[in-house]
Amino acid sequence: MPYKKLPVLEVDGKPVAQADAVARYLARKYDLMGRNERDALICDVLVDTLEDLEQAICYCRMEEDPERKEARMNQLLNETIPLYLTKFDQIIGKYEGYIIPSTTTWADFVFAETLENFEYMFGAPVLDKYPALQALKKRIHTIPAISDWLIRRPFTIS
Amino acid sequence: MPYKKLPVLEVDGKPVAQADAVARYLARKYDLMGRNERDALICDVLVDTLEDLEQAICYCRMEEDPERKEARMNQLLNETIPLYLTKFDQIIGKYEGYIIPSTTTWADFVFAETLENFEYMFGAPVLDKYPALQALKKRIHTIPAISDWLIRRPFTIS
Repeated sequence: MPYKKLPVLEVDGKPVAQADAVARYLARKYDLMGRNERDALICDVLVDTLEDLEQAICYCRMEEDPERKEARMNQLLNETIPLYLTKFDQIIGKYEGYIIPSTTTWADFVFAETLENFEYMFGAPVLDKYPALQALKKRIHTIPAISDWLIRRPFTIS
Repeated sequence: MPYKKLPVLEVDGKPVAQADAVARYLARKYDLMGRNERDALICDVLVDTLEDLEQAICYCRMEEDPERKEARMNQLLNETIPLYLTKFDQIIGKYEGYIIPSTTTWADFVFAETLENFEYMFGAPVLDKYPALQALKKRIHTIPAISDWLIRRPFTIS
């Protein structure tokens, strides 16, 4: 396992690390990059921005000092998360739950999975005010192969 | 400025955020993605892994407690940084300072810039044991347009 981290994809018999690199490789292979350069750019921007938010959450969870942790958690729940989710909801709301109009892309899958993680971490109401994000997640979760996997998958949320 | 962060690139009159998204967009436009899908994957993997290292450095710099900061800094300098740089040096050493054999890619630029930042942060000896990383940085820095910019650029390292 390179760099001792998951996920890993085997490509031509060799293990390849890094979630986004693997996702982008599969997206190119299975036509999930959008229709043109501009779509590919929008997917990259939104995925990277979502990861900025995940990093802010990670900083907060890693804080060991109880007082500082509480202050960071308050800022996260009351400012940072609403700021990012409101922006995402506006963008995705324009296209009825798609990141790229009427075209499923790898970024939709990254969002659906990350939003589900947020619900586990902060409770389902975390998405209450964001109908477009809920719509995106629902759309991806009702793709037959995905909904089948959701039933069968082992519980792995950390 | 979207998300109140730099860098920003103007594409079709609209500002686009996220350094890697912008770099990848320009790489597709100016043929800096390597020769095939596998090259593109290797670039993505190495850039994302370099960013894991940058994140570890960032966690350390953000630590406010002096005792914990010292412990983290020790781990960073004696374990984490050597672990990553040794691995990068081995990979890049195979192709004489290129990430993809004989082909300049956007990942080379990301590495050259990040390695320079490491030298500012930890002192030039941080790269002493890594000849391939030094070779890559030197190769990129002697591209005429780059060396010209290096002379003219304002000092912006944080």
